Amino acid sequence: MSADNQQGRLDKDWIVGFTDGEGCFHVAINKISGMSLGYQVLPEFRIVQHEKDEKVLFQLQEYFGFGGVRVNRKDKNGIRKEFRVRGLENLEKLSEFFRKNPLKTTKMENFELFSKVLELMRNKEHLTEKGLHRIATIASKMNRQVKPIFLRRK
Amino acid sequence: MSADNQQGRLDKDWIVGFTDGEGCFHVAINKISGMSLGYQVLPEFRIVQHEKDEKVLFQLQEYFGFGGVRVNRKDKNGIRKEFRVRGLENLEKLSEFFRKNPLKTTKMENFELFSKVLELMRNKEHLTEKGLHRIATIASKMNRQVKPIFLRRK
Repeated sequence: MSADNQQGRLDKDWIVGFTDGEGCFHVAINKISGMSLGYQVLPEFRIVQHEKDEKVLFQLQEYFGFGGVRVNRKDKNGIRKEFRVRGLENLEKLSEFFRKNPLKTTKMENFELFSKVLELMRNKEHLTEKGLHRIATIASKMNRQVKPIFLRRK
Repeated sequence: MSADNQQGRLDKDWIVGFTDGEGCFHVAINKISGMSLGYQVLPEFRIVQHEKDEKVLFQLQEYFGFGGVRVNRKDKNGIRKEFRVRGLENLEKLSEFFRKNPLKTTKMENFELFSKVLELMRNKEHLTEKGLHRIATIASKMNRQVKPIFLRRK
């Protein structure tokens, strides 16, 4: 197996399988001053790898034509890097990819909740108290189901 | 997305991507009485998932036509299950699959070391002191590079 054979454009099914294993759809709702409601909705997709595998992260970036590769964290096991996509426009293109090429694990359920949040944001619902509450409720069902700060307000 | 659409035979590139994320090629060298040299070489391939995703493990078993799905561990986060392949004959078929459909991450290097061990075993080298030492040296370069008990003998 030469290095050359590992090069080249990724296959869509490979991307789906790798995302089923390593991908993360996440919606953060951050308390932030300067926003009309005091909270910012921040959806993002990321795939984290040890830096020794940063090549596939750059290949993902090249495949999609958006997103960035950066350091995720450093610890005793070395540096982890991530392919990260933010921004509604790019996330909607990503979402379109996974609608055409469905995930095979239960990560599909997270993706569907994530897509729902994107749809609400496209309709500007995150700018209303009611919409923000709806988004926070959806976000609380994703991943480890931690309740966003927004829903823990007194 | 209906449950039906998630059914069906897996795609080979999806399997490669999922294995790049979640697969593990491992060679254990266990101290065991009853073996001529006192050590047993046990190569295995496994993919571990939370039991909520056991379906893809059974789909892998169905795709390959060998291997088994069983409990890997239980902890506070629930039950983890694994698709596991042991036995030289099946592992060689698996190895053939990944030669035709190469991994894209540095897991490829583990796979190549793993395949080398299979080749040595096919030639019965694990039954000689010299061959066993060679296998143990290869195994020590895999995964977290823990030195097998065999190489830590006094």
